[in-house]
Amino acid sequence: MERVAIIGASMTQFGQREEWIRELLAEAGIACLEDAGVDPATVEHLYVSNMASGEFEGQGGIMNALAHDLGALPAYTERVDQTSSSGGAGIYAAWRSIASGASDMTLLVGGEKMTHPSTAETTDIIASITHPCEYKHGLTLPSFAGMTARHYLERFDAPRESLGKVAVKNHKNGVDNPHAQFQKEVDLETVLESPIVADPLRLYDFCPITDGSAALMLCPESVAKEYTDEYAVIAGVAGATDTHVVHERPDPTVMGGVVESGQQAYEMSGYGPEDIDVAELHDMFTILEFLQMEGLDFADHGEAWKHVEEGRTERDADRPINTSGGLKSKGHPLGASGVAQGVEIYEQLVGEAGPRQVDADVGLCCNVGGFGNCVITTIMEAAA
Amino acid sequence: MERVAIIGASMTQFGQREEWIRELLAEAGIACLEDAGVDPATVEHLYVSNMASGEFEGQGGIMNALAHDLGALPAYTERVDQTSSSGGAGIYAAWRSIASGASDMTLLVGGEKMTHPSTAETTDIIASITHPCEYKHGLTLPSFAGMTARHYLERFDAPRESLGKVAVKNHKNGVDNPHAQFQKEVDLETVLESPIVADPLRLYDFCPITDGSAALMLCPESVAKEYTDEYAVIAGVAGATDTHVVHERPDPTVMGGVVESGQQAYEMSGYGPEDIDVAELHDMFTILEFLQMEGLDFADHGEAWKHVEEGRTERDADRPINTSGGLKSKGHPLGASGVAQGVEIYEQLVGEAGPRQVDADVGLCCNVGGFGNCVITTIMEAAA
Repeated sequence: MERVAIIGASMTQFGQREEWIRELLAEAGIACLEDAGVDPATVEHLYVSNMASGEFEGQGGIMNALAHDLGALPAYTERVDQTSSSGGAGIYAAWRSIASGASDMTLLVGGEKMTHPSTAETTDIIASITHPCEYKHGLTLPSFAGMTARHYLERFDAPRESLGKVAVKNHKNGVDNPHAQFQKEVDLETVLESPIVADPLRLYDFCPITDGSAALMLCPESVAKEYTDEYAVIAGVAGATDTHVVHERPDPTVMGGVVESGQQAYEMSGYGPEDIDVAELHDMFTILEFLQMEGLDFADHGEAWKHVEEGRTERDADRPINTSGGLKSKGHPLGASGVAQGVEIYEQLVGEAGPRQVDADVGLCCNVGGFGNCVITTIMEAAA
Repeated sequence: MERVAIIGASMTQFGQREEWIRELLAEAGIACLEDAGVDPATVEHLYVSNMASGEFEGQGGIMNALAHDLGALPAYTERVDQTSSSGGAGIYAAWRSIASGASDMTLLVGGEKMTHPSTAETTDIIASITHPCEYKHGLTLPSFAGMTARHYLERFDAPRESLGKVAVKNHKNGVDNPHAQFQKEVDLETVLESPIVADPLRLYDFCPITDGSAALMLCPESVAKEYTDEYAVIAGVAGATDTHVVHERPDPTVMGGVVESGQQAYEMSGYGPEDIDVAELHDMFTILEFLQMEGLDFADHGEAWKHVEEGRTERDADRPINTSGGLKSKGHPLGASGVAQGVEIYEQLVGEAGPRQVDADVGLCCNVGGFGNCVITTIMEAAA
């Protein structure tokens, strides 16, 4: 089977945007087609990663609208929803589309418009993905994050500061990402003294609410060569699901979906954790960066905090994590986030990451829906 | 590439249901696994066709919930939305999943819960898929149907009665479908004297608002043989998109997405219209049955009404259409409808259609989103 290549990428400015979802998707889609040098009329399949355009804006049918707006008719189009991991699911959907022979020129656009309702309304839409036996008792995603963080810190004797250092690192990286929502550094003291949200986690342990869109252009490797010599290849991609009821999981510090999807993606790619030069992890909450580092075998169970304390995940160190700024600083427009992770790894692999550039031949994205309810792991490599 | 087989099918009772979306999906999913004799723990990919669980019930994350409820963890799961054609899109997604090698045992469950809000609220959710330049002026899907019907009748000198006969035929078929919302015949006079909705179309030219769910179990043909000798194969499947703005289409009586997806599905399958023994068409409005018959080359342009007048689409005639009762009598729970079309064709091909059984080796489904905005055509054949 022929390998699946990525030949172009784009992301809009993330943050509070005036544009509605259709405009954000079109903005990223047009920029991606231009970046790849692809005529929209040649697009065969168009995937739109989005969780909730209907809930946020009363807008359905955004995939048909986008195909129309891009001039991509009569391309097949479909909306892919996997909550916060819709973007990663879109990468997987685009991969299957090409690998099955259904499509060559395949465009993926992910986006979400979230900042216009009140924080309470937005939180309510997001909370609807958790199990009612939990969320009706106040167990929203931030609550799980707080309890998990407390459990982790106590069980593994990790200092509270180690979580704060995830935020500090990702904000530092975000300064060099012109599309990030927050392009400013924060110091550890600011993180540790910010308002408590879900004890022990504070405001700066959480990603913001964000509008934005991101896109990737994919095709078979033989077709990619007609467009460019500088492309990336999807070496492995897999997804897995964990319990809908979070308290049914045997160990709150183990994300089963991360472990399962990671193992499958490693197996498919032939790479192991030691081969991953750079990674984008789903730091919706700082504690999640630890859990994914461990689930993906970047660190032993209960040891990820030491890697962070030792600075091994900084941009100039062993294995840089979240060079884009992560969800923490870049922002988290649900359907866009997994695609934007892919954009960062693609840019790192083809040498287009500008001031964020690291030395990387193989990169990984881990995109998480819910509190690990759905997880997609994607491994990319630079064209040989 | 190995062929993709269907080894089991189910649908819930369609109609006004007390159960919410999660329960409806689980009901069809469990029944389908039982019908196929498949252990839920062996499911690798689970696709959920659904347009708007968030808009209708404030319920997100239904794919994760269903994987949990079925005992299918850690199966990969994804929600597929293509508005009213989400079910057909789910068939295509399941096909790509298997054809790409990503998954063997692949479960597709489509469903929608729609009857609990007011008709105005439900109509508003559905209208959100049309372009605001049209729906803000009252051009909802029923309006397009009315205008298109008037145009068709005048241009092709077709009698108003021919549209009514579509409703009469489909209701007659629905009497023998124990899962149909309406299991009762209607006579032509009743149709023609029912209240006007969008002139010249009347209440009985429209499908009802419905709750329900349907499911299909798919796998590679070599795996299918381990389960059963009686299975169907997907011979061709394709999707296409038409303009979001309906008035930009060159001819209101030609559904471009039907023509395009039909041609691609015929080409992929090696079959032509003359080979199709039985078909399920998307009769959300009676006029759509004419337009799809013509788009799929079952009839020449402007001639479908004659086939209906001559009774050639009846269950005991040349090419039976909508033996299930169609959306008209069976009901139209958006995400379920395309899957339920597949259920009917599967049952016809494996000889499980009971009193609705016709003699068929090859069958076709055409599932339409919006007013032809997105269309999926699927061609199935009985196992050799």
